Amino acid sequence: MGLIVQKFGGTSVGSLERIEAVAQKVAAFRHEGHDLVVVVSAMSGETNRLLAMAHEIDPQPNPRELDVLLATGEQVTIALLSIALEKQGIPARSYTGTQVYIRTDSVYNKARIQNIDSKRICNDLESGRIVVVAGFQGVDEKGDITTLGRGGSDTTAVALAAALKAHECQIYTDVDGVYTTDPRVVPEARRLDYLTYEEMLELASLGAKVLQIRSVEFASKYNVPLRVLSSFESEGGTLITAEAEGMEDPLISGITFSRDEAKLTILGVPDKPGVAYHILGPIADANIEVDIIIQNVGRDGTTDFTFTVHRIDYQKAFEILQEISRTLGAREVRGDNKIAKISVVGVGMRSHAGIASTMFRTLAQEGINIQMISTSEIKISVVIDEKYLELSVRTLHAVFELEKNSSGNGLSY
Amino acid sequence: MGLIVQKFGGTSVGSLERIEAVAQKVAAFRHEGHDLVVVVSAMSGETNRLLAMAHEIDPQPNPRELDVLLATGEQVTIALLSIALEKQGIPARSYTGTQVYIRTDSVYNKARIQNIDSKRICNDLESGRIVVVAGFQGVDEKGDITTLGRGGSDTTAVALAAALKAHECQIYTDVDGVYTTDPRVVPEARRLDYLTYEEMLELASLGAKVLQIRSVEFASKYNVPLRVLSSFESEGGTLITAEAEGMEDPLISGITFSRDEAKLTILGVPDKPGVAYHILGPIADANIEVDIIIQNVGRDGTTDFTFTVHRIDYQKAFEILQEISRTLGAREVRGDNKIAKISVVGVGMRSHAGIASTMFRTLAQEGINIQMISTSEIKISVVIDEKYLELSVRTLHAVFELEKNSSGNGLSY
Repeated sequence: MGLIVQKFGGTSVGSLERIEAVAQKVAAFRHEGHDLVVVVSAMSGETNRLLAMAHEIDPQPNPRELDVLLATGEQVTIALLSIALEKQGIPARSYTGTQVYIRTDSVYNKARIQNIDSKRICNDLESGRIVVVAGFQGVDEKGDITTLGRGGSDTTAVALAAALKAHECQIYTDVDGVYTTDPRVVPEARRLDYLTYEEMLELASLGAKVLQIRSVEFASKYNVPLRVLSSFESEGGTLITAEAEGMEDPLISGITFSRDEAKLTILGVPDKPGVAYHILGPIADANIEVDIIIQNVGRDGTTDFTFTVHRIDYQKAFEILQEISRTLGAREVRGDNKIAKISVVGVGMRSHAGIASTMFRTLAQEGINIQMISTSEIKISVVIDEKYLELSVRTLHAVFELEKNSSGNGLSY
Repeated sequence: MGLIVQKFGGTSVGSLERIEAVAQKVAAFRHEGHDLVVVVSAMSGETNRLLAMAHEIDPQPNPRELDVLLATGEQVTIALLSIALEKQGIPARSYTGTQVYIRTDSVYNKARIQNIDSKRICNDLESGRIVVVAGFQGVDEKGDITTLGRGGSDTTAVALAAALKAHECQIYTDVDGVYTTDPRVVPEARRLDYLTYEEMLELASLGAKVLQIRSVEFASKYNVPLRVLSSFESEGGTLITAEAEGMEDPLISGITFSRDEAKLTILGVPDKPGVAYHILGPIADANIEVDIIIQNVGRDGTTDFTFTVHRIDYQKAFEILQEISRTLGAREVRGDNKIAKISVVGVGMRSHAGIASTMFRTLAQEGINIQMISTSEIKISVVIDEKYLELSVRTLHAVFELEKNSSGNGLSY
């Protein structure tokens, strides 16, 4: 009966028929007595269409103006959804990020929400209206339009849920929840009923595309219950909260992986303070994001330094590293873009040391060489040869018995 | 060297190439030392595309939400034009109607501008920026998005020129100025160099599509010099001001005409007070606009009442009139949708009585029957059988010697 914030992504509102279907879904919730705030993305393909126009004029379009352009995508959807709701006799009112005053900083194209003025929304809810808000966009101090970056609509929804103290934030997408791993790789993958914010964060940052990472951070910070659901089915879903509501924490919640990585190593770097900075500074300056970083203990006054980047940045990073190698007097630069990263994630791991050894033993038994290892409190990631990806994921899924509904907890794709 | 407000319509910004061409045109003015505010419409076809989406969901879409939808059309154009200007190294900044605070009333779909807060624009101009403003849209007291109705971008441009006390407001369109009549009907039609607001008003309301009528009213009220120019040529244009700058006022400035009319007559209405109201009230209630109204002197206690409507409203008006006829006890309803309206317009007409008789004699000599006559201070309109339209216009154009450049004054298409 409480207030629910619902977010529908680009695919869910990808055509007029789908927008009308969303209106029916929303209407059904309304008739159950819920107050509703609905956040929508641009119709699928629209943001890319707008971007293509901007890029045809200028490959590096002015960032302020690009946000003015992109913000129209969601504005079209809020209007069409409100028209569809009104047609069904349900009072609805749409708001852009500027109107509902989603205040952000002024970093165009990837602004961050600073606060939300919920007064207008509360007034509308009290008057019995459904409030439809444009995701992905906000307004800065000067009144300029900003956008939050790809996937920003999730963050809009969670931020609104936090500001309005909503009962729950529901993210409707084209999958029906979070799985123990990608069902296309492991047919036995199981949908998880519950998950913690921490697990979801590790998962999101490791490559699962279900939720934008910042939206999960936001949900965690303001303790907003987050539910991932399919727009096209009415059953299922995964609830993400601070504490898993399952019976007991399993050791492992899920296995995630990424093929989009490449590995770079600079060998025989003179081992002195500032080496990491001298290597990664120029990489960061070129706007290349670095994922795993490993520096082994030095030997003979030199050290080896390895890191992974997104595969599309591989060539550029390689060239920069060769330049750095000359400057630092390193021995050699090596690279490999045929690698994959696999991670096992779970809050239960904290209190259990055996996970890592089980994981490494399993891979060794299959003859799979581990090239890099990186760990955090609730995840272990390994980098392996890309060709062993499916074999590794399937084997680990079986070894950790993720197909069994032991607790209702877990995570992934 | 002063401030110029330039407005580019949908055809002028109809493609990315054309937007880039507009950017070059604007840049050239900038290099001449002008301060510039540029108002743009939606790319041609865009408003219709958005309307079609709304109508597919609901043939009578919620008016507030329709404006939220339509306003995206101009927002796309301001962003793209600003990106194109910035690419050429010219500092530009785009604003929506909401951002630059074009305050309107709350009549969605045909709002009227109430005032403009020009502070942000003035700041930008002082900083050497070109300001690009979305035409056609504004914001009401509550912060809701409004639109001004078809052709509203002209009004935005003139209102901005008035608020900023601009030197001139230039309307770029797909014709190179205002003509003595439609050159497709009379090849000898001549482009007018000068025209008064009054003449342009009569012209606009009589069917010329060059300028939105409200923009001319606005220009007249605030005495903003208005220049109509072609976006595709650099020469020519027609300047519209309070006083024609030509040597002397010619009798007739131009001839305009319309095929979009239909005529309705209710015969033998009992002649008593309130007849006109009883007839036109229900017509107005049905949102049908009435143009010429004629009521003859009554005879035998009854009167005949004739008016014209837009041809698309003919059937509806006819049905309503039959209903009214029964209620009022009138004799008969007659209608004709094969008519045309021709008007001769000119400020010189005020002080010269012979125009009307010359016009009527000319038509009589050609054997053309005049069905209705309506006059104002500076125009005479007649309704005739549609099939005589071209013949009438050509003959009148020749009789009034409009092809001769007698003064540089005149008006039309």
